[in-house]
Parts: sequence; structure tokens; C-alpha cells
Amino acid sequence: MGGLCSKLRRMMCVPFLYAIVTGPAVAIAGDPAGAETLKGDPGLAVDYVWVLICGFLVMFMQPGFACVEAGFCRAKNATNLLTKNLMDFAAGSLAFWIVGYALITGEDWHGLIGTSGFFLAGDGYDVGTYLSFFWQMVFAATAATIVSGAVAERIKFKAYLLYSIVITGFIYPVYAHWVWGGGWLSELPFGVGHVDFAGSGVVHAIGGIVGLAGSIVLGPRYGKFDRSGKPRAIPGHNIPLAALGVFILWFGWFGFNPGSTFSAHHLRISVIAVNTTLAASAASVTALLIILAKTGKFDLGMALNGVLAGLVAITAPCAWVEAWAAVVIGIVAGIILVAGVYFLEGLKIDDPVGAVPVHGFNGLWGLISVGIFADGTYGNYSVEPPFVTGLLYGGGIGQLVSQVVGAVVLFAWAFVTGLVLFKALDVLLGIRVAPEEEIHGLDLFEHGTPAYPEFYTLRR
Amino acid sequence: MGGLCSKLRRMMCVPFLYAIVTGPAVAIAGDPAGAETLKGDPGLAVDYVWVLICGFLVMFMQPGFACVEAGFCRAKNATNLLTKNLMDFAAGSLAFWIVGYALITGEDWHGLIGTSGFFLAGDGYDVGTYLSFFWQMVFAATAATIVSGAVAERIKFKAYLLYSIVITGFIYPVYAHWVWGGGWLSELPFGVGHVDFAGSGVVHAIGGIVGLAGSIVLGPRYGKFDRSGKPRAIPGHNIPLAALGVFILWFGWFGFNPGSTFSAHHLRISVIAVNTTLAASAASVTALLIILAKTGKFDLGMALNGVLAGLVAITAPCAWVEAWAAVVIGIVAGIILVAGVYFLEGLKIDDPVGAVPVHGFNGLWGLISVGIFADGTYGNYSVEPPFVTGLLYGGGIGQLVSQVVGAVVLFAWAFVTGLVLFKALDVLLGIRVAPEEEIHGLDLFEHGTPAYPEFYTLRR
Amino acid sequence: MGGLCSKLRRMMCVPFLYAIVTGPAVAIAGDPAGAETLKGDPGLAVDYVWVLICGFLVMFMQPGFACVEAGFCRAKNATNLLTKNLMDFAAGSLAFWIVGYALITGEDWHGLIGTSGFFLAGDGYDVGTYLSFFWQMVFAATAATIVSGAVAERIKFKAYLLYSIVITGFIYPVYAHWVWGGGWLSELPFGVGHVDFAGSGVVHAIGGIVGLAGSIVLGPRYGKFDRSGKPRAIPGHNIPLAALGVFILWFGWFGFNPGSTFSAHHLRISVIAVNTTLAASAASVTALLIILAKTGKFDLGMALNGVLAGLVAITAPCAWVEAWAAVVIGIVAGIILVAGVYFLEGLKIDDPVGAVPVHGFNGLWGLISVGIFADGTYGNYSVEPPFVTGLLYGGGIGQLVSQVVGAVVLFAWAFVTGLVLFKALDVLLGIRVAPEEEIHGLDLFEHGTPAYPEFYTLRR
Repeated sequence: MGGLCSKLRRMMCVPFLYAIVTGPAVAIAGDPAGAETLKGDPGLAVDYVWVLICGFLVMFMQPGFACVEAGFCRAKNATNLLTKNLMDFAAGSLAFWIVGYALITGEDWHGLIGTSGFFLAGDGYDVGTYLSFFWQMVFAATAATIVSGAVAERIKFKAYLLYSIVITGFIYPVYAHWVWGGGWLSELPFGVGHVDFAGSGVVHAIGGIVGLAGSIVLGPRYGKFDRSGKPRAIPGHNIPLAALGVFILWFGWFGFNPGSTFSAHHLRISVIAVNTTLAASAASVTALLIILAKTGKFDLGMALNGVLAGLVAITAPCAWVEAWAAVVIGIVAGIILVAGVYFLEGLKIDDPVGAVPVHGFNGLWGLISVGIFADGTYGNYSVEPPFVTGLLYGGGIGQLVSQVVGAVVLFAWAFVTGLVLFKALDVLLGIRVAPEEEIHGLDLFEHGTPAYPEFYTLRR
Repeated sequence: MGGLCSKLRRMMCVPFLYAIVTGPAVAIAGDPAGAETLKGDPGLAVDYVWVLICGFLVMFMQPGFACVEAGFCRAKNATNLLTKNLMDFAAGSLAFWIVGYALITGEDWHGLIGTSGFFLAGDGYDVGTYLSFFWQMVFAATAATIVSGAVAERIKFKAYLLYSIVITGFIYPVYAHWVWGGGWLSELPFGVGHVDFAGSGVVHAIGGIVGLAGSIVLGPRYGKFDRSGKPRAIPGHNIPLAALGVFILWFGWFGFNPGSTFSAHHLRISVIAVNTTLAASAASVTALLIILAKTGKFDLGMALNGVLAGLVAITAPCAWVEAWAAVVIGIVAGIILVAGVYFLEGLKIDDPVGAVPVHGFNGLWGLISVGIFADGTYGNYSVEPPFVTGLLYGGGIGQLVSQVVGAVVLFAWAFVTGLVLFKALDVLLGIRVAPEEEIHGLDLFEHGTPAYPEFYTLRR
Repeated sequence: MGGLCSKLRRMMCVPFLYAIVTGPAVAIAGDPAGAETLKGDPGLAVDYVWVLICGFLVMFMQPGFACVEAGFCRAKNATNLLTKNLMDFAAGSLAFWIVGYALITGEDWHGLIGTSGFFLAGDGYDVGTYLSFFWQMVFAATAATIVSGAVAERIKFKAYLLYSIVITGFIYPVYAHWVWGGGWLSELPFGVGHVDFAGSGVVHAIGGIVGLAGSIVLGPRYGKFDRSGKPRAIPGHNIPLAALGVFILWFGWFGFNPGSTFSAHHLRISVIAVNTTLAASAASVTALLIILAKTGKFDLGMALNGVLAGLVAITAPCAWVEAWAAVVIGIVAGIILVAGVYFLEGLKIDDPVGAVPVHGFNGLWGLISVGIFADGTYGNYSVEPPFVTGLLYGGGIGQLVSQVVGAVVLFAWAFVTGLVLFKALDVLLGIRVAPEEEIHGLDLFEHGTPAYPEFYTLRR
């Protein structure tokens, strides 16, 4: 425990207060200019370019989520949704700088948590550390923002702001440490341990399942279920905005998945890009056709969520499967999406934009699919063995077991911490807006800014 | 023919059914992890980064097209246009995976068609092949989506979905094989053969001329021409959306043109980027000034289409000309755009967003401009001779002849296959929606989802 | 003076007329294909990729500005704002090609101005020159487009078009030469001379202060101040559009700041990316909290402008400071933003979108912050000494003096040339639209194209 305590002491030396008071006293052990690092490996220039640009694309997923959520909800809450999506990134990135990054990547403590690197202080002032931080930060922000959709149109902004800080500063980093920080799930004794290439589980299912918890704690929106309990459609107010958002997300996902090699020297990035595209396409076509069979209409909303469902599902396996498997994973994702939407409605859980089936259920499917389709040609961020090999390619059941264990643990961690968090916020602040606020819209009450002050709208 | 038949047999072994049934039986001759490939040429890391990121930018042109088309059409059809733009990519990319890619890049059969590589199966599981596939796929999807604008606001969705599959799976790949797959046009005995650096012809003119055929088969929208045959303006419903779309396209074009070197080691990419910008700017200013002279107004719609016209025109010559020539090519593109719009209206052809003059006519102009302005400093994707040299730089008339021949062949191929396709769809399914559907909008009838359900709109 | 005269003669040989008349007579001394350049330094491939992609991101800031300005203004002027943002890039990039680039980077004349490289002609046909031109061009366009917001909703389009040409062709290039072209400010004898890593001053403050001049010359919009002089809120018509614009700008800024190394071999790019994010986040949260304290509302508009304020402020110091300093710079930027908005309203200056506090005041703050927080680990675009060192890191007051001198010079240059320019335009053309045009909207009068012709809007 001595090590942990000394880490905590370092964390307490809030570095900027420190530096303001004492001047440039911190001795720097890292390589802040990068000249030494590059001398050690000149090939790093292209790796830095690759990781940074992919990271920029991941950051650009934030407006993707913002547009999807605002577009699929009602005009009276659009400003609220945009503010949530802006602030979960802004406040969340600060929380991640202060504490979250250290919990993921810091010195491991019994496989449970990282314990060093708060504030990027001290040795953290290093080009490699900053690169890693940038990447982890945009991932953490993605997990945070997913929840926004599930709790849309009824959560108090203040509660959401606190939630954002807790998920980026604690819930997400702890689980990410278990899988990506050398924690216990990565050390499972089946297959090569639990693996999740770009975060179907770590990012999307965490976000989706915390969102499920939030949605349950909040209860459905006023008017979502009629007296007999039948669900009623509450159509989105700006479909072009939502569609643009989905396309932006698809674009950003090309950073999310291929960039997760963290190296341009794994030419496997081309395979990842193709798989990402084909899974999304297959899921979208599948969802479109299912609804067509059911209603006779070409449903754009479901096709758009189909794209996202396919993207989420392929995120874990993208580096380990062939194109045909990506297509199959996508088809299944489309089916899970549609089934999931009806399943939640049957449980009277109100998830306004479908975040739980898209990110939660398909995130879990993505984890499991690795155990089935991984083809034994690529390792865990490595072109060297051991390779990840699933059921269909002679890998036996081991990898599948690791994946299922990881999925179960993820569900339990996210659901329980999510419930505790939202319940706690409810007790502390009250989590749900007042009924008249919900009816007239959160924009006026919480923000004072209607989204479209000049347009006549039909209040829904 | 033995070779072709054996290819067809391999194609029949639909690989994912095959693998599901038999397990991991396919012997892999490619390099799916990329370690060997990189060992052979360590400089490939930066080439992969370049090609992939440029490919992501090209994929991002999809929402560009979606926003332009939705914004320039009426609110009652916005969902329909978005669905078309989503599905031509989603369904089209699957068709391209199954068959289209093989037709372009497969083993050449008498200069006419490629015959191997269906489903990326077998040896196709290779980082280099997947990279090439990704690039070709986003290009094919661009060709497909161009047509959407020309046939907007009146085509049945089902017909459009089938059209998408045929253009990405057949019309586009065959012509692309002729120019980019080692086919007969690339072997023309004038100049260095017919060349088209990034696809003014292969992508844009194919899309634009197939769109022309579609527009003719469909006939004009209800109300576009009055009883005396005079055209009436049908203004777009959301100009900011359309403008955003054009900017997104411009951004994506920086992937389209410079990325077409398929190598970061051709530093010529800087010249391509500059030419791309200056041509777009010159065309936009030109179109704006012409309309200003005609009407006294600064017409944003024409200035936006001017950008696209300049981008289309510079796409073929971008790698072979100097900045001043890019400006001249852009100025001519702006003139062609405006003249083309009036020309089509004179023929009573209704092209709601101007796709035919922008992509069709200016795509052909781009091809021809190579024969005039190519300056003899760069080869066909090569820094080695033979260089591409046009009329003004002492290359004689040879290159111009090759370019004109290619343009004529392109027009014939695209127009005839387009007519046949749309006529066949008309006979099979009926291609045009019913009059009351056209009047009340395709969104309600085909999709059940109005784009802006809460806003009061004036029906046009 | 002989040298200058001969330059002017070369400029007169308008190169495209020349080539059309004489054929390919220009002897080329540059390296237009890039093979020689690459042979000289094979690492340039990754540098070219880095600079070009970052440049594409900077170009993508154009729709960011367009969306922010259109969204924060009224529907009746949306087409006008979009046209301005399109045309300042299109016409501006041509002006920059003709003259602006030469003034920045050409052969220095007494530290005041560059004198060679007009039209990229002659030796300018070189991959390195084109790369540099591309980068400088997108920066110049950014400076131009900033002003649009400050003069929104009341300036004549014709005047704005001329303004665009003058700022990209003269005001911006001259000042940029002083700092980035080897001019006199870069040679100040304090610290390492005046420095501005990515252009808090050169780009943003120039744009913001010229905008201040324009706003003063134009006077406030009709209805902005009531009879007693109290300001009235004129809410933006499309908040989702404005929010999307800010996110696009944030995304584009990842090209703007890290790309300014002009080399991928400075791994410092990771530090720059992190600082850019954290400053934006801190400023946004700060602005949100200040307005929350004042009004009890979570104000999205201020949070969005907070993002931009933080981005502008960190632009100069981004390469020279640690993460904690980026956060502090951001917090101060948020405070300056809010104070600046109230300050201008107190002076009865009407800046519809807050361009002056965001870009002007925070641009100046960014310059000054370098003198305080620069930590002495990185040079001026160099990993070699001399390093830039500020007050808090033992650098003494020298650098701070250089920064303050630069800021004062900048303010004087931008404000005076801005006043002269807008006054001259007012005398020449009349700069302000007629009152009935302002009341009914510029879209109908200047452009003939309403932005949303189908929607019923409440005229404001």
C-alpha cells in the first residue's frame, strides 16, 4: 500500500497550483519535445500521424452523437441534447485528465486499477504519454456520450453533468483497465484472455448498459406508453440532422477501429477498414429489410441505427476476422437491433434513440463474435503469435469462454455502477425534471434557449 | 475460356456459406496480417496511412451528396433522398464486394472485364488487396450516389435500390476496368493511352450520364414545366443543409484527388491539392458572376454547384497540370455548368439538383482538358516517363485524341446501359411513383417518416 | 529597388496568358513531380501526408464558420452568411494565389514584405512550394472568414467580396510576413523574438480586430439596442446548425495547431493535440459556469463560444506549454470571452456572433500567454535551442515583452487597415444595406434565395 499512498500524495500536489506557486520546479524525466523518442525509432513519425489523425476522427464522433440524438428527439429538447453532448466531452475530458487516465494506464494494483499518472504530471510530460492520453481521452468521451441518448428528454442537466464526470473519471476507466490496462480480464486463462480490439465492450457496451440503468431509474418519458402500456412512436424532429449524425459517426469510426492498432506499421489496418464498412452496410440493409417485411415501409430510422449497430458489433472483432465474417456479424447485428428495440419496449423501458440495443446489446454481441469468427491470423495488437482464434477456425471453445466471461462481467459492472450512480444522483439532486418542464421542453427551463426560435412548431 | 469458367466456379463457392459449413478450410496465400508485406517495403506504412485516410475522406462524401440533394429538393422528399444516399452506399458496397471489385481488378479477359477476386475470397485475404478494395469501393459508391440527384423526387425506392446494385456491381466496374484495370481504353495507341487520374470520367461522368438516362426515362417532375413548356424554379427547402453538403464534398475531394496517387511517396500530392482547390474556387466565382450579370443577384445555388463543377473537371487532370491551368479549367467548368443547366431545361429534361451538368458534362470536360493542359512532368501514377503531355506543352494532338475517344466511349456506355437499366426497371417494377405520392411527397408513402414532423411547412 | 522591379515585371507576365500565347516556354527550375525532393530526404513522404491532411482539416473549418454564423443569426440572412463564407474562400484563395502568398513568403524586402512567387509561376512549380502554398492559403482563408461574423446581417455582399480580396491579398499577408516570413517582428531582440505558433495573433486576432473595425464602421443592427441604449438579445435561428459548426471547427483545429509543426518528425504534435483539447474544454466549462452563476441557466451559446475562445487562445502557445498551463489558459479565455461580450455591448458595438471577443481578444491573450507559460522545452518550429521560455519557467520578462509588442503592433495594424478598408468601401459602394433590406432580410434582396422557403417563420 505504500506505493498507492505515494501515488495519492503525488496526485494531491495539484500540479498547476504547484507550478504557479513554485515556478518550473518539476524535474522532467519524460521527453516533452520528442527528439530522443524519435531517435530511438524513426518509424514513430508515421505512427504518431496515424494515431493522431485517427484520434481526431474519434473526437469528431461527438457531433455525430449530438446530431443523432438531437435529430431523433423533439425540437423542444434539442438545445438540451446538444449541451449535454458538448459538456460530456468538455467536462469529461477534464475529469479524464485529472483522474481517469491514471486509473486506466497507471501502475497496476492487483489487476484492479491503475495508480499513477494523474494530471499528466511529472514524468507524464512526454510525447508518448500525451499521445496515449489523447487516444484514451477521445475513447472515454465516446463512452460517456452514448448514455445521453438513453436518458434523453427527461434528465436534469445538473445530474447529467455529474454523471459525465463519474463515467469518464471512474466507471469507464476501471473497466478499461481490466481489459486494456493489463488488468485481470486480459489475463483470463482461456484463449488469449479476454480481448476487445477497439471497444465493442469497453466503450460501447459500457455506455449502452449504463444508459440502460439510467433509463430504468428515470422511467419512460411522459406519453411514451399509453394507459394500456402500449408504446407510442415519438418521431424525431429533424431527420436530416440525425442522418448526417450517423454518417459522421461512420466516418469517425474509421478512426476508432483502424486507429486502435496504435501503429501504422500493422498493415492490417486495411482489413480493419474494410470489415468496418461491410459490417455496417450489412446491418443497415438487414434492419431495413426486416422492417420492410413487417410494415411495407423503407424505414430510415432503423436503417440508420442499423449502420450504428453494425459498427458497434464489428468494433471488437474488426482486426481478427475476414470480410465474409464481417458481413455475417453485421447481419446478426441488424437482427439484434430490431429485436432489442421491441424487447425494451416490451419491458416498458424508454430509450428514445435506441442507444441500448445499438451500443449495449450489439456491444456484447461484438465481444462474443470474436470467440466465433476470429481466424487466427493476427494477435492482440501484434503481428506475432499468440493469435486470436475462434470456434470456426479451430481455436476450440477457449476464446469464446473468455469473451462470454468478459461480457457477463461488463454487464454486471456497468449495470450495477450505473444503477448506483443514477440512484445516488436521484437522492442527491433529483434526477428527473418536473412534469411541466418535460411537457414544455427542457430547452426553455434549463437553458433559456429554444433551438429554433423563429420557426412555428407543433408541440409534441 | 477455361480460366473464366474456373473463376466462375470459385465465385459460386459463396465463401461465407462455405466457411460456415466446412470450417477454416481455405488455404491462405495472401498476407492477411501484413508483416511480410511490410518487410518487403517498409515505406508502405506511410502509403497505407495515406490511402486509408484519403479513402475515409472519400467515404465522407456520401453525407455530402445526401445533404446537397436533400437540401436542394423539397422537405416532403427529404427522408427519401437521405434513404437513397444511405442505401446506395450500404447495398452498393455489398454488391461491390460480391462482384464489382472482381470485375475491375480481376484477371483481365480480352481487355473487357476482370474475372477474379469475387468476395475477396481465397488469395484476396491480403492487406494489399483489402487496401485496394477499400479504395475502389468508396469510388464505386460515389458513382452510384451521383445518379440519385438526377432522378430525385419521383423515382420508386425499390427501383433505386436495384439500380444501385447494378451500377456498383456492373456498369461502373466494367468501365473502370477499361481505364483503370488494364482494359482496352488504357491501351489506346494515342499519347499514353486514355488516362483519367482520379475519375472525372470513370466516376463522375459515368454517374452523371447514367443520371441523364434516368432523368429522361422518368420524365420531369410534376410542375417543373408549365403548359407552354417554360421551366419553373422549384427551390430547395434547406439551403444551409445543401451548403454544408457542398463543403463536405469539397473536403472529401481532398481524399479523392490527392489520394489517387495511391502512394505518399509521390510528393506531387501537394500539387494535386492546390489544383483541386483553385479549380473549385475559379468555377464557383465564374458561375456566381455569370448569374450576377444575368439576374443582378448573388446566386448561392449556382455558386455551390460551381464548386462541384470545378472539382469534377479538375479530377482527371489534377495530377498533370499547373496552378494556372487549374484556374482556367475551373473557369471553363463554371461556364459549362451554367450553359448545361439552361441546355437541359431547353430540352425539358428535369435534373433537380444539376447532377448532369455538374458531374456529366464537366466530367467529360475534365477528360478532354487533360489533352490540352497536361504539362509533361508526371506520368500515369508514376514519376517515371512516359509523361502525360497535352497540346499546349508540345505533346501534339495524340493525348487529346485518346481523351476524346475515351469521352465518347464513356458517353455511349453510360447512356446506353443507363437507358436499358431504367427502362428494364420500368417494365419490371414501374419506375415512377404514383401522382398523388409525388404531390404529397415520397416520405410518407414510401418511408412513413416525414423529415420534419413538428414544423409547419408550406407544401410545394 | 532593381530586384523589386524585376519581380514586378515577372508578376506582370500573367503566367496563364503567357503560356496560352507562347506554349510551354517557361523553364522549370523547381521539382514539380517531387522525385528529386524525395530522394534528398525520404522522410518527406510522411511530412507531406501530415501537412496535407492537417491542411484539409483547416479547409474544413470553412463550413464550421459558415454553420456557426448562419445558425447564430436570423433565418432571413442565412443564405447571405453562407454565400459570404463560401465566397471569401473562393475569391480569397484566388487573390492569395495571385498576390497574397508572394507577400508572405517571397524574398524579404527590408523586413516588411515578400516580393516574389506571384501566381506560383516559374520556379514556384515545385512540390515543396505548392505544399507551403496550400498551407498558407487555408490559413489566409480562415483569417478572412472570421470577419464575416462581426459584420453579419447588415453588410452589402459586394463590399464583403471586395473586403475578402483585400484581406487575403494584403492585410493578412503583410502581417503574416512580419511574424512568419522572416519579417521584423520575428526579429525582435527580446526572448527569441515575437512568436505565434499556429496563429492566435496572425490569423485569429487579425480577423477579430479587422472585424471590430468593420463592426464599428457599420454600426449596430437595427433593433440591437433600444432607445435607452440597452442591448437586446437577437437569438440565433438554428442552434443545432451553430453547434455542429463549433464541433466542426474544433475538429478542424486539430489540423490548425498540430499541423503547424509542418513536420511529422516533431513528435511534439501529440502534446499540441492534448493542449488544444484541454484548453477548449476548460474555456467552455468556465463560460458555462459563469453564465450559470449569473442567470441560473446552462447557456449553450456561451459554452459553444467558450470552446472557440479556448481554441483561439491556445493556438499561439499550444506547442510550448504543458497540459496544466493549457487548462489555465483556457479558463482565462472563458473569462475573457464573457467579459468581452459585455464590454462590447457596453460600447454599443454590435458583433452578432461574438467574433471579436472570441478571435480578437482571445487571440491577443494567446500571444501574451506564451510569454508567461512557455516552458522551455521546444523551439520555434524546432526541437533544437533556442527554446521559447516564459516568465514562470525562468525565462525572465524578455519573451513576454516580445509578445506584448507583437500584440500591440497587431492591434494597430489590423484596426487601422480595417478602418481604412471599410471606410473606403463605404465611400466607394456604400457598405450597409438599405433599412428595408435589413428588416426583410438580405437573402431576398441580395441573393433571391430564401434559406427555408417552405417553412413558416416568425420574422424577427
